[in-house]
Amino acid sequence: MSITIQLAEKIAEAAKAKAKEIGVPMNIAIVDEGANLKSFHRMDNAWLGSIDISIKKARTARFFDMPSGEIGKLSQPGGPLYNIEHSNGGLISFPGGVLIKDGDTIIGAIGVSGGSVDQDHAVAEAGASVFKK
Amino acid sequence: MSITIQLAEKIAEAAKAKAKEIGVPMNIAIVDEGANLKSFHRMDNAWLGSIDISIKKARTARFFDMPSGEIGKLSQPGGPLYNIEHSNGGLISFPGGVLIKDGDTIIGAIGVSGGSVDQDHAVAEAGASVFKK
Amino acid sequence: MSITIQLAEKIAEAAKAKAKEIGVPMNIAIVDEGANLKSFHRMDNAWLGSIDISIKKARTARFFDMPSGEIGKLSQPGGPLYNIEHSNGGLISFPGGVLIKDGDTIIGAIGVSGGSVDQDHAVAEAGASVFKK
Amino acid sequence: MSITIQLAEKIAEAAKAKAKEIGVPMNIAIVDEGANLKSFHRMDNAWLGSIDISIKKARTARFFDMPSGEIGKLSQPGGPLYNIEHSNGGLISFPGGVLIKDGDTIIGAIGVSGGSVDQDHAVAEAGASVFKK
Repeated sequence: MSITIQLAEKIAEAAKAKAKEIGVPMNIAIVDEGANLKSFHRMDNAWLGSIDISIKKARTARFFDMPSGEIGKLSQPGGPLYNIEHSNGGLISFPGGVLIKDGDTIIGAIGVSGGSVDQDHAVAEAGASVFKK
Repeated sequence: MSITIQLAEKIAEAAKAKAKEIGVPMNIAIVDEGANLKSFHRMDNAWLGSIDISIKKARTARFFDMPSGEIGKLSQPGGPLYNIEHSNGGLISFPGGVLIKDGDTIIGAIGVSGGSVDQDHAVAEAGASVFKK
Repeated sequence: MSITIQLAEKIAEAAKAKAKEIGVPMNIAIVDEGANLKSFHRMDNAWLGSIDISIKKARTARFFDMPSGEIGKLSQPGGPLYNIEHSNGGLISFPGGVLIKDGDTIIGAIGVSGGSVDQDHAVAEAGASVFKK
Repeated sequence: MSITIQLAEKIAEAAKAKAKEIGVPMNIAIVDEGANLKSFHRMDNAWLGSIDISIKKARTARFFDMPSGEIGKLSQPGGPLYNIEHSNGGLISFPGGVLIKDGDTIIGAIGVSGGSVDQDHAVAEAGASVFKK
């Protein structure tokens, strides 16, 4: 099972709605099970630097099948994955990347960037949870 | 004047409708006046290799304020811009990248990849022409 | 509103005057609202390694619409944006990148490198403040 | 002897004057004898894609101590330097890059991009010739 563009749009819509609710314009990237970009939206006035970060967060989540922020806990100085961010053309290892699942099957990931990492994560979760409903 | 996400979505919708009409799944990228990504959609079953190509086509069109295919006419062996594709982190100089204009003002560009270059160009034009109506 | 070359030159002149005042040769880069390079000057005897750093500082400031040094406060080990520098082809997250504003509208950014970070920031501020007068 | 910022500015001014005379906005890059960027100016409405091209032209000229267009004559299919553009992070091998000389001593190079290659070359020559007068 692969993520469809229709589903990606639904997920992006839910993320955008959450972003509007909290009043922070976001960059929202969705990748498929192959970690390849499926959809991207930059809301008006969202940070330019977050284009790349949102895509990297989504890819990082799918690369290691966990939320992007989990990687960051392990990549600190002295940690087991210190500076793993140098791999794969650049990882982003702080929160905002979340897996998209169909039951137990991972079908993609969403990456969000534009606010604080807590806001980014909340918007990513709002997107990813659409499929669970 | 900058391209809004609402306008980008309208343009992408028109491009997708054209792609469906001709029966070819496409990658559709839209950049703003600064050549920064605004939106991206990969239709189901569209080529993975066209993710990057569609983005580069949109950027190429905005980089030189002309359809991407015009660059390719000049970049052939023996031509005046031979191997210009090595600049800017990689250009795509065949058709499928088209400017988005508000009257005479360039506000962005659309890049399409997934079919023949004629099909790509037709889908890009269908997207870009939304704004003219 | 976009930054003009005339304004960029004024800003660079003011930055150079400040650099001379404090006696430190600087690299001075100015980008437009799309984070694309508008002007660059390397003063005589300024560090070669600061060419790239000054450009990246200007881009970093515009990427996140804040002084570059603010990013660095958040990107330390254990901080919320740890290793964000791996994004966007490389960020510089210490001081020396400052926004250029027309009232409340961001029209670009200036990045300065060649001295201590406090000196870099002071020279960038001297440049950016020209427009406020 | 190294190119000074004062001389670089004189050269850039002469190039800009020529660009205005022929009515084509240009990107103008100047590198020193080490092929490192010394100054850069993007005239208003000049192509965004020419930022990188003007810098690469100046570097290409200094890398091989000849006008950038001479490289292009040798890099064609079947030629002795076929696809040399892949080196050095990307070369631009069509006209517009010209050496800056103090008598017989090479002290830098100028790269111009924004018009036809003939226009680019003419503007680069106008800049480089300042020093000869």
